[in-house]
Amino acid sequence: MTTEQTFLVRLAERLPAARLRTDADTLLEHGRDWTRLHTPAPSAVAFPESIDEVQAIVRLANETGGHIVPSGGRTGLSAGAVATAGEVVVSFDRMNHILGFDAVDRSVTVEPGVVTQTLQEYARSVGLFYPVDFAARGSAQIGGNIATNAGGIKVIRYGMTRERVSGLKVVTGRGDLLDINRGLVKNATGYDLRHLFIGSEGTLGLIVEATLTLVEPPREPAVMLLGLSGIDVLMSVFARLRERVQLSAFECFSDRALAHVLARGLSAPFDTPAPWYVLAEFDADSEEAVAAAMEAFEAGVEAEEVLDGVLSQSETQRLALWRLREDITESIAHRLPYKNDIAVRVAQVPEFLTEMQALFAAEYPQFEVIWFGHIGDGNLHISVLQPADMAREVFIAECERVSEHLFATLARYGGSVSAEHGLGLVKKPYLHYSRPAEEIAYLRAIRQVFDPSGVLNPGKLFD
Amino acid sequence: MTTEQTFLVRLAERLPAARLRTDADTLLEHGRDWTRLHTPAPSAVAFPESIDEVQAIVRLANETGGHIVPSGGRTGLSAGAVATAGEVVVSFDRMNHILGFDAVDRSVTVEPGVVTQTLQEYARSVGLFYPVDFAARGSAQIGGNIATNAGGIKVIRYGMTRERVSGLKVVTGRGDLLDINRGLVKNATGYDLRHLFIGSEGTLGLIVEATLTLVEPPREPAVMLLGLSGIDVLMSVFARLRERVQLSAFECFSDRALAHVLARGLSAPFDTPAPWYVLAEFDADSEEAVAAAMEAFEAGVEAEEVLDGVLSQSETQRLALWRLREDITESIAHRLPYKNDIAVRVAQVPEFLTEMQALFAAEYPQFEVIWFGHIGDGNLHISVLQPADMAREVFIAECERVSEHLFATLARYGGSVSAEHGLGLVKKPYLHYSRPAEEIAYLRAIRQVFDPSGVLNPGKLFD
Repeated sequence: MTTEQTFLVRLAERLPAARLRTDADTLLEHGRDWTRLHTPAPSAVAFPESIDEVQAIVRLANETGGHIVPSGGRTGLSAGAVATAGEVVVSFDRMNHILGFDAVDRSVTVEPGVVTQTLQEYARSVGLFYPVDFAARGSAQIGGNIATNAGGIKVIRYGMTRERVSGLKVVTGRGDLLDINRGLVKNATGYDLRHLFIGSEGTLGLIVEATLTLVEPPREPAVMLLGLSGIDVLMSVFARLRERVQLSAFECFSDRALAHVLARGLSAPFDTPAPWYVLAEFDADSEEAVAAAMEAFEAGVEAEEVLDGVLSQSETQRLALWRLREDITESIAHRLPYKNDIAVRVAQVPEFLTEMQALFAAEYPQFEVIWFGHIGDGNLHISVLQPADMAREVFIAECERVSEHLFATLARYGGSVSAEHGLGLVKKPYLHYSRPAEEIAYLRAIRQVFDPSGVLNPGKLFD
Repeated sequence: MTTEQTFLVRLAERLPAARLRTDADTLLEHGRDWTRLHTPAPSAVAFPESIDEVQAIVRLANETGGHIVPSGGRTGLSAGAVATAGEVVVSFDRMNHILGFDAVDRSVTVEPGVVTQTLQEYARSVGLFYPVDFAARGSAQIGGNIATNAGGIKVIRYGMTRERVSGLKVVTGRGDLLDINRGLVKNATGYDLRHLFIGSEGTLGLIVEATLTLVEPPREPAVMLLGLSGIDVLMSVFARLRERVQLSAFECFSDRALAHVLARGLSAPFDTPAPWYVLAEFDADSEEAVAAAMEAFEAGVEAEEVLDGVLSQSETQRLALWRLREDITESIAHRLPYKNDIAVRVAQVPEFLTEMQALFAAEYPQFEVIWFGHIGDGNLHISVLQPADMAREVFIAECERVSEHLFATLARYGGSVSAEHGLGLVKKPYLHYSRPAEEIAYLRAIRQVFDPSGVLNPGKLFD
């Protein structure tokens, strides 16, 4: 028997058949994420229901030489949870309970399979707010959010998933169960392992429970959508708004991005066309706050930076304006875009964007490029659309060629080759553009500490 | 020659004599921190002026088998920067420059020897705010703040030092220079080493540069000081205020703590005596905000939880009220108190406090115990005063005996044996109460990765 077969036999002794699936549909569905670049080929999918079971699975992998791919909502965009080589996928679909809430701590304790939106709704039901938010909220799971340090659209105000985690239970690659930080605000007792697991993409341990701190809800959020004269005025529009209002989001997108969303039947925000748009969300809980936002708008018009704009007058209109930004990904999904998710320091955005546009005009003249991003965090999403008359392989090869140019430029800025999507399999070849060899050597040694047998998510992040 | 002598000889080739000091005064002053439990005995004190020099020192230590104790403002309370065994102290006193500020990123880049208060003042000069704040602000250095993940009095609103660090340059124990995260908001490219170095107390690497994110200043902060009927009403007073105003601090102290401060000539806040006091700071930028605070006060009086109170009417009065809380440490410093700095989850504070008071009444009947703390973070400082007629050694031994009881109780709560003071030498024997053996094994392995020869801060944290 191969090691994976031995692993499976031993797993079958531990888990009932209904929770150790090998049917083709389950293998396909749980063997992949939202990327479509690899052929999923797990040997089985395990559905543990308890921490004990997760620990048993990891220990069996160590004993048999088996391999594990942890799997949350499978909405990843870097193939971090894709199983391509006979691994056993460990799905947290059945560990999806909210375990407790403490009103004084304002913290909620959850199993890893709780869906992000479920947590958001739960937070609202107790008068609080879970601010990590992104388009995949309806499928993504908290365990995956933590494993990738999910960011999204509210980072400018509330930070990444990292900022929310006050406690973490983890089964390490060696099979130890660690109960880290236990919901404490202050705890200066040696290295904070919590932050090592956050963003580790399932390579150091499996997250089996988390305690998350909720925040005060935003106060009567409103959205202002503005059409800008060009990309060069982006930061000046940003500065004017940030000075005057309490921003909870500052997003941007190009006219081409908007065109794809409008093609699906949404209404244009206003008649004036603009090459770039920004969506700013802010607390509109007083007349002063709304007046301050209007003042920023008028100053922008005066400066000939803002061509037109609209301010949401109701919750319905606020959500409708958000769709112009949030539906971009879905509107181009059928085109299977090649995606990059990069970041530079916020202050570097205009210069970097200008350089990127020149690079793309030179290297991608035949491709349609869709830009959008969380510009208040220095984070840009770049989606390249495949021309109808080009073969998939040729297209991917061409995109990878241009990515090398893009990342070489990014390295000059000290930027990140993956702002919030992680490395997985897709960005792994480009890690060296963001982290030098001597730093990667430390990452490798840390992985060795937690998973010396290499049972967790083999081949992801780095070799 | 001993290894430390060889190390010194090689250092003398690299550094001018004026920056490699061995005179008795320098050895004494730079060989200790604010604790007075160990005899300082470094072999020399090095004052590097550049990252290159720091790297050279660490490399020489590796080559010769020498040992290094990093030293900031030496205000530590756990002997994390004390040199007791012929180590070379590396002081960052001469690397004390503010290197740059970016208004768009709102970030400031500093050398590690910049004093906390200097950074606070710099932030104010650019219209922003550096919120990490504590009584030792005038001496503590940013490098030490980061190495201990300093907390203090504004954590409830702004978090710990950890939350401020967007970039870190570190010379590891192996002598590698790492440039980590470079000021990015989003960066999902493998394990975040930044958070491993933050709070590592100089055992993994020496912090040689940091980029820190500043925040918006609080809006017209005011202080309300309240006298409470007892410790049992603390959390209900907290909840009432937190619901109504934007808190930036929520501190508590006992009548005995206040008595020591008043003995130094400060005025009592009001005539009504109370067993416990809280100091709440909040944004008083509108009549509504002030009215909301008054409403919380009145509801507290109505509920017979609040006995009396005062609201600052000016900046002078706000600062004067703060002194009643902040001067506690100084007012008892001449008594060389035995200190504990512990934390539980915020929600557990009342139950834990009750249990602690019973323990102390039983075990410490002859000692005066001074309580104060950052109660909004679940963090308590407990200072035990030595009776005049008791020998120092007997007193310390007795305190250590009671500490074991205290920490055993704390362990039942999942609390922290060091909330914000770190472990150093003083709390190292108690680490096992907060972190189980299997977790400490991982900490030890991580230290081995970054400092395989054990040149950095030997004997600190754990063996």
